[in-house]
Amino acid sequence: MGEFELIRRYFLPLARQQTARSLILGPGDDCAIQHIPAGRDLVFSMDTLVEGVHFPRNYRPDYLGWRALAVAASDLAAMGADPECFTLALTMPAADEQWLAGFAGGLRSASNAFGMALAGGDTTSGPLTLTLQVHGTVEHGAAIRRAGARPGDLVAVSGTLGDAGAALDYLDEASPSPDVTALLDRYHSPRPRLALGSAVRGIASAAVDISDGLLADLGHILEASDVGASIDSARLPVSPHLKRLKGDAALDYALRSGDDYELCLTIPAECWRNAPDAVRKKLSVIGTVESPPGLILDGKPCGADAGFDHFRSRP
Amino acid sequence: MGEFELIRRYFLPLARQQTARSLILGPGDDCAIQHIPAGRDLVFSMDTLVEGVHFPRNYRPDYLGWRALAVAASDLAAMGADPECFTLALTMPAADEQWLAGFAGGLRSASNAFGMALAGGDTTSGPLTLTLQVHGTVEHGAAIRRAGARPGDLVAVSGTLGDAGAALDYLDEASPSPDVTALLDRYHSPRPRLALGSAVRGIASAAVDISDGLLADLGHILEASDVGASIDSARLPVSPHLKRLKGDAALDYALRSGDDYELCLTIPAECWRNAPDAVRKKLSVIGTVESPPGLILDGKPCGADAGFDHFRSRP
Repeated sequence: MGEFELIRRYFLPLARQQTARSLILGPGDDCAIQHIPAGRDLVFSMDTLVEGVHFPRNYRPDYLGWRALAVAASDLAAMGADPECFTLALTMPAADEQWLAGFAGGLRSASNAFGMALAGGDTTSGPLTLTLQVHGTVEHGAAIRRAGARPGDLVAVSGTLGDAGAALDYLDEASPSPDVTALLDRYHSPRPRLALGSAVRGIASAAVDISDGLLADLGHILEASDVGASIDSARLPVSPHLKRLKGDAALDYALRSGDDYELCLTIPAECWRNAPDAVRKKLSVIGTVESPPGLILDGKPCGADAGFDHFRSRP
Repeated sequence: MGEFELIRRYFLPLARQQTARSLILGPGDDCAIQHIPAGRDLVFSMDTLVEGVHFPRNYRPDYLGWRALAVAASDLAAMGADPECFTLALTMPAADEQWLAGFAGGLRSASNAFGMALAGGDTTSGPLTLTLQVHGTVEHGAAIRRAGARPGDLVAVSGTLGDAGAALDYLDEASPSPDVTALLDRYHSPRPRLALGSAVRGIASAAVDISDGLLADLGHILEASDVGASIDSARLPVSPHLKRLKGDAALDYALRSGDDYELCLTIPAECWRNAPDAVRKKLSVIGTVESPPGLILDGKPCGADAGFDHFRSRP
């Protein structure tokens, strides 16, 4: 089957099924065309997943399809942007129909869940690599940036941390326990915090999604905002699954492992007090932004630069 | 050197040097932000280049940097869109500083030449693969689509065809002749027809860029427009270099080989008569759009589907 036929069969349905509010022209021409409503800005981010680096070899294609869009959409959540559409560059060694059907199925589920239509892309032959670009929109000036944290702001995170990173220890389990299954679900099916990101516009002063680990990603906020922070490890949200499986080591996963795709926010104290209950109950306050640069963990200085680095982490 | 330091050193200057008319926030946050002026639409396209598939192994990194942006920007030209900015996903086996300096240099030249700022992207570790997404804008409704060709329209192409495809036969020449050098330049340094694409808005009824070969790409217009065309091979623009090097075979390169990144347009006859001289002299009329589907070459039916297909062309 040729490239054009492949695109038609597996990917065009992903373009059609969504009511793409803003997509004027989808796949099939030299370019796609998106209408950005007056008063709103385009918010976009590009993410690459390489086989053997960002996901295991022979990874289930339906998991990969979901994961690829979820991971990319998480960056929209971190800006408080409303998701609109995405492009997909799929490089694969051969046009394996069974693999493609599985991959397109996972991608379709994510596309439905996040309300994002496929706008275009490219399919090429080569080592399995995916690059997605996600497009969202936000009212002019309302995007939440990394650089907005100010001393006195609270530091808060959504959900629980460390589960997806710990799941890597169990990927090959033949009959996983319920606790392991819960962690594996966090790794295979990350759920970007799109609704929460949108809900904290006007509340959060800065935001980042936790892809490389809390310390590393909070570090990006601190660096961009030229501030420091003090974190209380006892307040880190850790799931009962992770606690039971990893005991005292759970904290280390929560601080340093990536792939959770939760949000880390800074919030001015008065905004926190006035925030809707629906927002407050989705967040755990774990510390405070402070003037001196650097990260203090339980009263002691702590290297913020401790997450996943695609080049430094290689032998 | 870590990923973040690499990005800072080689790619951030590409974000800063351009006066990005519409870029509100460039690289360094979770997303970039682009302002689309009221009354204009976003036009975007994604292209992947894989080492050993779309460019030779150990290809000169400065050529690659130029080529990558030129090839992607050519899709904007084919829509008549004005270029604005681009994103880059760069997957590479190792962070080789010499390679990166060369690559960033070529990319910077193209970025300057086309007036496009780097808006964001991703750098990852893996087999050498590049995905670029280019962003342009166009007045609402003014983009030139593939589906607009009507019977009676003229078929026209820009520049000369076949040079870049023929260059592939000479990539390893140690001391290339002037004719070979001219072809190699077409392959290494494609010049997307951005100004021409912009100039034929309101003149051309359909457009495509010639990346996979004239027959294949014109075929895309015919299929999208549900029409056919008749082409006169004697009117195909072929360079003196290609004629001297390939003799009678030059025509086959002009019809079937890709990588030229010229434009193929259909133009209503009255629009052609009224077109500015500056536009007319950049184009060669090679045939006519006709009602019956299919492509007629010198009076005989001809398979349009004869270009480069990333999967079918593999053994």
